[in-house]
Amino acid sequence: MNGKVFLVGAGPGDPELLTVKAVKTLAAADVVLHDDLIGSQILDLIPKTAHVRSVGKRCGPKSIQQQEINALMVAFASFGLVVVRLKGGDPLIFGRAGEELESLRKANVDVEIIPGVTSALASAAALGVSLTHRGKASAVTFLTSHQATPSAMDWQPYVVSGATLTIYMPGSDYEQTAGQLISAGLGGATACAIVSRASSQDEQIYRTTVADLPKAPRLPAPTLLLVGEAVRAADVGEATSTPDESRIHPDVLPSLPTELDVYMDDQVIWGD
Amino acid sequence: MNGKVFLVGAGPGDPELLTVKAVKTLAAADVVLHDDLIGSQILDLIPKTAHVRSVGKRCGPKSIQQQEINALMVAFASFGLVVVRLKGGDPLIFGRAGEELESLRKANVDVEIIPGVTSALASAAALGVSLTHRGKASAVTFLTSHQATPSAMDWQPYVVSGATLTIYMPGSDYEQTAGQLISAGLGGATACAIVSRASSQDEQIYRTTVADLPKAPRLPAPTLLLVGEAVRAADVGEATSTPDESRIHPDVLPSLPTELDVYMDDQVIWGD
Repeated sequence: MNGKVFLVGAGPGDPELLTVKAVKTLAAADVVLHDDLIGSQILDLIPKTAHVRSVGKRCGPKSIQQQEINALMVAFASFGLVVVRLKGGDPLIFGRAGEELESLRKANVDVEIIPGVTSALASAAALGVSLTHRGKASAVTFLTSHQATPSAMDWQPYVVSGATLTIYMPGSDYEQTAGQLISAGLGGATACAIVSRASSQDEQIYRTTVADLPKAPRLPAPTLLLVGEAVRAADVGEATSTPDESRIHPDVLPSLPTELDVYMDDQVIWGD
Repeated sequence: MNGKVFLVGAGPGDPELLTVKAVKTLAAADVVLHDDLIGSQILDLIPKTAHVRSVGKRCGPKSIQQQEINALMVAFASFGLVVVRLKGGDPLIFGRAGEELESLRKANVDVEIIPGVTSALASAAALGVSLTHRGKASAVTFLTSHQATPSAMDWQPYVVSGATLTIYMPGSDYEQTAGQLISAGLGGATACAIVSRASSQDEQIYRTTVADLPKAPRLPAPTLLLVGEAVRAADVGEATSTPDESRIHPDVLPSLPTELDVYMDDQVIWGD
């Protein structure tokens, strides 16, 4: 009897940003093969009876090969076990899931994918900005410079497109990244932000511009670099002082009493 | 005393793809203002005592204006209530959250964003493909043609970039979309797929090519259109027949018995 492999997104860091389905699947796991960066609070959700192994490729002097991860999943599943391959963020974004899926399909192993909150979305939440803010960016691109050699990365179409850029694993050579973005035609005054460990307890944010990016601090990994005018949106709101009359737009005032009356009629206990 | 507004991602459809944090926040809500497309199983999670209102802009002959939604959030929060603005997918992707955040900040209302699983990720999970498959696409772009006039949408930089394209709200004029993509330089043989109601019980998938897209069926909204060679990856695996010897790559066979021995030593109950 064959088991099953679940490719599960662990979300960006905060254990409460796991999906309900991910929590349930972890609770049913016989085997969990997890990325290096999965936090201990999330690993604590795995039953004590399960076999848990870090397959992070950065650990140890002789790192585990992708082929070995693939083979472990197939081997455990063919013993009838429920195998969870737990990946940071969403399992299908920059996680080599494509290769894992191909291996599992070749071995006729049943596989289910449980999507997760990818860290770009948690980073945007931390910044308080919409990645596709009307009038500022009609698209958002997730990319990584990690896999490409500097010369192989062609930033120009991304810059031309006007999409908000969320760069996973941006490395720490901000001077090079800023130089490449400016060479590709991006204005140096364009807003950007570094988000370190989005959604975790030690989340840090640094806002700057592309021209000033080389002066940015090197925040603890994992970080994301967000680039584009949509990133600036947060500053506008935060800097605005608040006259009381702006609280309710005059156009909609007439509809409000009715709304609140209905609410009171429901005999709801109001906040204290 | 001021309340607080939570912008909460409801995920792509499956109630189990809500995050734990979203479920907890809904359970604590005094007021929920939700998008039209939120399913009844998710709305069932809201306490009976809460005031729930659909603020979907497609309902009724006289649709609710964005300004009215903004004003409702501010008004309820200023009564000290916990207000949840529940949005499909992730709250910061194509949801006009930017405008809502600006209104709340102008009114000095405390706001927290709870990211969610955006439907592009659930669509990729449904298709069983990595949106950033090595060697096929090193980036993924989320965009929508909904807000742009046909002539204003410039597809060329997106096509040139080679990123996997996930098009939210693609409309039903597939002939126009295919024509624009091909005019922008995309090969007609490029793989694409329509995913309807990703992750819900009536999820449907239709795989085709850009050239054949005009012949595709009009599946029930909401749909996503995914375009790029990464979308094809699933077909390769599924079509592959499986010789038993491919189950475990010979390179890693020596490491497997140890792994399984360790597992047995832990005295885990094996699957039946």
